[in-house]
Amino acid sequence: MDRQVAAVKPKVEPIRWVGDADGKLILIDQTQLPLELREIECRDVETVWEAIRSLRVRGAPAIGIAAAYGVTLGLQLPALEEPRDFEDRLRQVTQYLGESRPTAVNLFWALNRIKQTAAALRGSESCATIRVALLEEAQKIHHEDREICHAIGRFGSELLEDGTGVLTHCNAGGLATSEYGTALSTFFTAQDQGKQLHVFVDETRPLLQGSRLTAWELAQRGIDTTLICDSMAAQVMREGKVQAVVTGADRIASNGDAANKIGTYSIAVLAQAHGIPFYVAAPTSTFDLTLESGNEIPIEQRAAREITHGFGRQTAPTGISVYNPAFDVTPASHIRAIITERGLIEPVTRENVARVVRMSSENERSS
Amino acid sequence: MDRQVAAVKPKVEPIRWVGDADGKLILIDQTQLPLELREIECRDVETVWEAIRSLRVRGAPAIGIAAAYGVTLGLQLPALEEPRDFEDRLRQVTQYLGESRPTAVNLFWALNRIKQTAAALRGSESCATIRVALLEEAQKIHHEDREICHAIGRFGSELLEDGTGVLTHCNAGGLATSEYGTALSTFFTAQDQGKQLHVFVDETRPLLQGSRLTAWELAQRGIDTTLICDSMAAQVMREGKVQAVVTGADRIASNGDAANKIGTYSIAVLAQAHGIPFYVAAPTSTFDLTLESGNEIPIEQRAAREITHGFGRQTAPTGISVYNPAFDVTPASHIRAIITERGLIEPVTRENVARVVRMSSENERSS
Repeated sequence: MDRQVAAVKPKVEPIRWVGDADGKLILIDQTQLPLELREIECRDVETVWEAIRSLRVRGAPAIGIAAAYGVTLGLQLPALEEPRDFEDRLRQVTQYLGESRPTAVNLFWALNRIKQTAAALRGSESCATIRVALLEEAQKIHHEDREICHAIGRFGSELLEDGTGVLTHCNAGGLATSEYGTALSTFFTAQDQGKQLHVFVDETRPLLQGSRLTAWELAQRGIDTTLICDSMAAQVMREGKVQAVVTGADRIASNGDAANKIGTYSIAVLAQAHGIPFYVAAPTSTFDLTLESGNEIPIEQRAAREITHGFGRQTAPTGISVYNPAFDVTPASHIRAIITERGLIEPVTRENVARVVRMSSENERSS
Repeated sequence: MDRQVAAVKPKVEPIRWVGDADGKLILIDQTQLPLELREIECRDVETVWEAIRSLRVRGAPAIGIAAAYGVTLGLQLPALEEPRDFEDRLRQVTQYLGESRPTAVNLFWALNRIKQTAAALRGSESCATIRVALLEEAQKIHHEDREICHAIGRFGSELLEDGTGVLTHCNAGGLATSEYGTALSTFFTAQDQGKQLHVFVDETRPLLQGSRLTAWELAQRGIDTTLICDSMAAQVMREGKVQAVVTGADRIASNGDAANKIGTYSIAVLAQAHGIPFYVAAPTSTFDLTLESGNEIPIEQRAAREITHGFGRQTAPTGISVYNPAFDVTPASHIRAIITERGLIEPVTRENVARVVRMSSENERSS
């Protein structure tokens, strides 16, 4: 056949289950990026535990998905024929996985879904059947996350015209989720639609998620990417190289104020000063409607060494005081729109947040 | 005696001449900072050459001063009794020092002053007398720079109230000049006047002059200092921790547009958005009145490795595109005042720049 084919883009799948309930879990070892794309084959729950503990898999949704699959691995014991043994082992495995990263909310959310699935079948089904049902539940969690990311990508890509220069900060990509990520999903989807983007990536000090992970993900998919230091974003905007900014969010209050990696607020102010729209891409699960505004979001302070010894070498005077907030809050007033899996929240008002986030699952399907 | 004494503050003297024309030059080895305060004793011109070449001494004024003293070291040969030998050696030494860092404008400016001093005395004075005169000229260059920095400090400190939080970027300190620096001179002078400041220092990626040098200088003098990443400046401003920003400048156009280390423009925009005054501290020698505006200032692009391998370790994907401008230009509209050794330029207009920069040396003395 004489037809043009697109260049093959390697698919980045940070989490893959291979086989049936006796199968295995394959993870990308994120600690080896960007120098090496190394996969870890998990054939037992201990390997999953270690991967979560050592940040080989990171990002809230990704941790939850990996842990859910980890339960199936923990139940791959031939001796588990007796319901009581099965129950004991399930309790042991979920507790064990919960201890891998005790501050990760998604970890417990995912493990609870697995436990509830088991509880619903207890007594009426065989251990073997429950084991299959638990794998299916893990796959459902995985599938739902993938669908959410793709939906965010579809809504977000409509905001990005062909030939647009865009800027992003930190890593809101596939590595932190199941496949496409949130902010990066808008770029990947635009690319899938044949649009050419040029993406500027902030390196994102102190932990360099931008240079280590985002630049890697974009390059993997063949997207035209330029790495900059965080302090260069204003200059890039001033030179007219950027027509939109898209970042992720960690937590969004009911008025639309959005907490995200430190430096996001800086970029939002700079974007406003340069007349460039600033978008936040996040699933509706990111909203915490119990928070009146971003003022109620606590800002975690992190260790001084991330700044003073950030690259394995001391680069600041011994004993110097350091201020190292992990997050900042971008006020709703600086956000042109929030891109969710249910559509855009635009303008970002308390009413529009409530309308989209409280939208019924029926409406969701019609999107 | 029963009197209160201020805590002893170690004096940072990056350049010191000890003794007469047969004396020696002592430099702080800036490549060892901030981990170690190591001095280099220069007893010959080769050691000075190596110190400039290897960035042990850096910063435009500091390089010029070190080179001027280096000439005296190069002339410390007992055999130089004959005027012709002396002339040959002088030509050889100044040319040699000029090759230590061929792009440093101040290096040639200082060496030219030394050569002109020698030329004026040629024929009428003995070699020994000329040698003393050349040391005195080097000391004069050094002294003038010190006076300029102190004058900037006096004018700038009037802008800083007791208890003020201030922010600075990169290193406009004593290490780059003779003693007090430019931006940092305003802080040091305020401290000398008994004012308590709290200084936030941007680490200043990619080369970390803020964390390596500025944080060290401030801590050395006992100033309350907090190190932050560049991306955190907006958050610090939003939290009300900063009431003024003071930076240096590399080159200022006739309309007041100021080129300085990359990231300065970003901070100027953020300061304006938060209603915080942004000041530039720079000697009048920094102005280039042949430039109509900052648009005429070329922006040097630097090597990708500064970002991808910043600290001896690769932190970005192999082959990623990088944009690494060394400087940016802050428009005069974003600068509340320029602090010079002749007083403030405020508001920053073409007329005020011309008035202060073209001010006669008579007026200068009356300040």
